[in-house]
Amino acid sequence: MSGTWVVFEGGDGVGKTTQIDLLAAWLRSHMPDVVVTREPGGTPLGVELRAAVMHGDHVAPRAEALLYAADRAHHIHAVVRPALERGAVVVQDRYLDSSIVYQGGARGLGDEVERISMWATEGLLPHLTVVLDMAPTGDRLERDLDRVERETAAHAAQIRAGFLALAERAPARYAVVDAARPVDVVAADVRAAVERLL
Amino acid sequence: MSGTWVVFEGGDGVGKTTQIDLLAAWLRSHMPDVVVTREPGGTPLGVELRAAVMHGDHVAPRAEALLYAADRAHHIHAVVRPALERGAVVVQDRYLDSSIVYQGGARGLGDEVERISMWATEGLLPHLTVVLDMAPTGDRLERDLDRVERETAAHAAQIRAGFLALAERAPARYAVVDAARPVDVVAADVRAAVERLL
Repeated sequence: MSGTWVVFEGGDGVGKTTQIDLLAAWLRSHMPDVVVTREPGGTPLGVELRAAVMHGDHVAPRAEALLYAADRAHHIHAVVRPALERGAVVVQDRYLDSSIVYQGGARGLGDEVERISMWATEGLLPHLTVVLDMAPTGDRLERDLDRVERETAAHAAQIRAGFLALAERAPARYAVVDAARPVDVVAADVRAAVERLL
Repeated sequence: MSGTWVVFEGGDGVGKTTQIDLLAAWLRSHMPDVVVTREPGGTPLGVELRAAVMHGDHVAPRAEALLYAADRAHHIHAVVRPALERGAVVVQDRYLDSSIVYQGGARGLGDEVERISMWATEGLLPHLTVVLDMAPTGDRLERDLDRVERETAAHAAQIRAGFLALAERAPARYAVVDAARPVDVVAADVRAAVERLL
């Protein structure tokens, strides 16, 4: 496959949407075929699945993990693989690592979530995963937080550690970018990492 | 878990619905708590998933297999496990074997479909699986069929062989019932197999 595939990962609120928009705008000024997509919900079926999970009855964790895997199998088959085959640059919001970190890590479903996801996609991995990294509490000190803020920060710290551990496992396929800096500084680092690929 | 769980399997048109209705009516005249259910589509979420697969865009085979696994994970969690825990008799139309035979066998997705399904359900298996067994072409001879009929019969023969092979793998948990006989004769055999369980 002749295309290039860049995935953005990171916790909630680190600025993925903004950075994806900036990278896509820059890519479009240089390349004829740029596809911006997302998981979950990158296809009409995916949107339906997402709605089913959201406003249906309570969904068991394994059922939820399998629905995300189904969304992924379909998305890769219908969107990503065809785009890469025709030589496009694909910029994607979340992929395998989010499943591992959110379902596998935080919910304790272990390695099986990764295994099922690899089966779902026939093992397709992005050329580059950009991890937007940010300390959960920003500049605030732990002692200034109330109990709920502390729990939220602890969960965010666990998610952050999960992404960093995955990046360490295969550093050649990752760019960890400090996302606590101004938007344009972060964007310049992201662009530099993507330029090395192209 | 104190309940009893009976699953019906078999190819299309072997009479599962009729036999499930007859067994359920008989059970209800003897037991206070009988649950009749089905896969896929045994929960509101399952019905939504089924609709999404049916009238959405083309769904890749792995995505379809994962959707069925998600439906199953949710159905077992929300319907079957609670019923068994309170001591009910659960009579179910299709389960794991249908996935193995239809997705795994006929579509070539191998052992992974079984593995994912076992993960989805945390390995929960029915006390008895009734395989309603019928020769695909009934009394007609192969030489009397046209090309399309022959292909249909070949596919049905493959499905039938798949169910019989699974029954042979664990005969203590299966009852293979010849479904080519009159409805009441088949029902009596099914009842006898279920009575031995109770």
